[in-house]
Amino acid sequence: MKKHNFNAGPAILPSSVLEKASQAVLELESTGLSILEISHRSKEFVDIMERARDLALELAGLTGKGYQALFLQGGASLQFYSTALNLLEHKGAYIDTGTWSHKALTEAQFVGNIDIVASSRDNGYRNIPTSYTIPKDADYLHITTNNTIYGTEYFEYPEVNIPLIADMSSDIFSKEMPFDKFALIYAGAQKNIGSAGATLVIVREDILGKVTHKIPTYLNYQVHIKNQSMTNTPPTFAVYTCLLTMEWLKKQGGIKAIEAKNKEKARILYEEVDRNPLFKGYADIKDRSRMNVVFNLTNESLTDRFNTLWSEAGINGIKGHRSVGGYRASIYNALPIESVQLLVDVMKHFEKTV
Amino acid sequence: MKKHNFNAGPAILPSSVLEKASQAVLELESTGLSILEISHRSKEFVDIMERARDLALELAGLTGKGYQALFLQGGASLQFYSTALNLLEHKGAYIDTGTWSHKALTEAQFVGNIDIVASSRDNGYRNIPTSYTIPKDADYLHITTNNTIYGTEYFEYPEVNIPLIADMSSDIFSKEMPFDKFALIYAGAQKNIGSAGATLVIVREDILGKVTHKIPTYLNYQVHIKNQSMTNTPPTFAVYTCLLTMEWLKKQGGIKAIEAKNKEKARILYEEVDRNPLFKGYADIKDRSRMNVVFNLTNESLTDRFNTLWSEAGINGIKGHRSVGGYRASIYNALPIESVQLLVDVMKHFEKTV
Repeated sequence: MKKHNFNAGPAILPSSVLEKASQAVLELESTGLSILEISHRSKEFVDIMERARDLALELAGLTGKGYQALFLQGGASLQFYSTALNLLEHKGAYIDTGTWSHKALTEAQFVGNIDIVASSRDNGYRNIPTSYTIPKDADYLHITTNNTIYGTEYFEYPEVNIPLIADMSSDIFSKEMPFDKFALIYAGAQKNIGSAGATLVIVREDILGKVTHKIPTYLNYQVHIKNQSMTNTPPTFAVYTCLLTMEWLKKQGGIKAIEAKNKEKARILYEEVDRNPLFKGYADIKDRSRMNVVFNLTNESLTDRFNTLWSEAGINGIKGHRSVGGYRASIYNALPIESVQLLVDVMKHFEKTV
Repeated sequence: MKKHNFNAGPAILPSSVLEKASQAVLELESTGLSILEISHRSKEFVDIMERARDLALELAGLTGKGYQALFLQGGASLQFYSTALNLLEHKGAYIDTGTWSHKALTEAQFVGNIDIVASSRDNGYRNIPTSYTIPKDADYLHITTNNTIYGTEYFEYPEVNIPLIADMSSDIFSKEMPFDKFALIYAGAQKNIGSAGATLVIVREDILGKVTHKIPTYLNYQVHIKNQSMTNTPPTFAVYTCLLTMEWLKKQGGIKAIEAKNKEKARILYEEVDRNPLFKGYADIKDRSRMNVVFNLTNESLTDRFNTLWSEAGINGIKGHRSVGGYRASIYNALPIESVQLLVDVMKHFEKTV
């Protein structure tokens, strides 16, 4: 039986994507070769890479606006360092909204000075700070648009005169966003873009090449742009699943259509969290993430009982991160509304049995 | 029709591996989830990672000898920089045997001083240098054990009193090697280990932690060791294909058994290259690679005719690298002897038609 997959990432992918990817592992279209064994220099793969890069820009509405899309390796974690290495000359400004943004600013300190212009750390990362002053010598402002662990999300973005950089790993392509406000966007693929092993980077070219220190080849965005994201062997299969997933998204009606579904899924689930006396939400209501619904039991002694119920219902992956405890239901693009409805039904049933 | 796949990498994988990987994309064993959508923290994936790390050490005969195996991202290209970053304090010594070893020493210069102790560059990289002096202040000696583009390979290794580092991307697990002579081994997976997107690093722990500069998290081997290669989301599917491919290798009788097959494949092909007056080998005979057989036409005006013949026979991927021209037949572990025999038959047939 196929499970209802609420994993935080690697996360659920559309079943049609899994079917096509599975077939391509046996044979990519009519090439007589598996997607795993074709050369990255073959016309088939060059075409896959080009389509993936083009479609990423198209979905973001950034085609022809001076941006380049790259598919790199190393996850957002390597980007924490790469972004600073490519852009930090005087100071990096960071808004600290959780574990991942904290890791980003930690890595930047291997490059130079940083300034934490705002943090919700003292509040258990329950909200998105709205008040901050950017230092005059800041090269950029870095934010994390969605915080998987604490379940918070930006719905309005900082207005700044310096390049705005965002780790969008967990909410990219889940809703309409003013992508052109951002000079650099990066995202691990394993939530809304595709499978683990690829990292999407979208960068406006004019911000690059301005630091005075040298940048090693693999960490240098300008090198990857010049080589059309083929500086070395790319993660071919992961890029292919990204292409399939983005094509699926386009076919669903694009970001606008998926946003409506995502809003509805989040509404249904938060409504139950707020209504059901056995649960309480974690994040401040105004900043609640539509991707990761984080909640706790009001009575922790009922943990085993609730865990048995959802587990028996075929639900997977809703245990909360160890730093928050409780539950985290990740409801990314590919999760059907029926899975959310099932979780709500289990929560209602749980209430009746207590 | 399944092609005969002589690609240099990404390269041919065993058909049983492709079948299992394809199935796992639909559902991993009886988990109710695809390998692409399980959490890397799930017991299923933690088990896959542990088995892959253990098996890599087992195949290399390094279990219990102070080594750790890691599956990282970024390919050998990122390792060119990482190795130096983790080990270069005073000077890195390099033997330059081709494009890839040259790239390795270029990246090391982002970290510190290097010394090219020997190079076969002036000889068109046709041989492996055997004479060199290691500077007294060298922290390590770096070699590239097999050179895909020029078709040369080490069969004896430098005897040194400093850590020996090797890029083994294209001949690891193809033959018995004195792995314990090496302090650090790295290899992109996409030839003999598995599929693109994972990079195997095998490192002897006692050489780490000795440089005085700071190392960013993702580039720090000690961090990856501490986190059992799960510092961040690993390339889950690529690691799984590595496990399947290494399990296949073990089932074939391990490295000793595959070496016998690889020797036979190389013998058959080089014999024809040497016998057939229409072809000439590129590398010096004593240093010829058993993984990449590089040869040229003696009469280049016959190029189109030969290309038509092998292409019509269902052969794929034998065009040479642009820097050498001619042909490169990559005959990695998974390539059946029948494919080599077919290529030889085509070469013989070509001779008759000219």
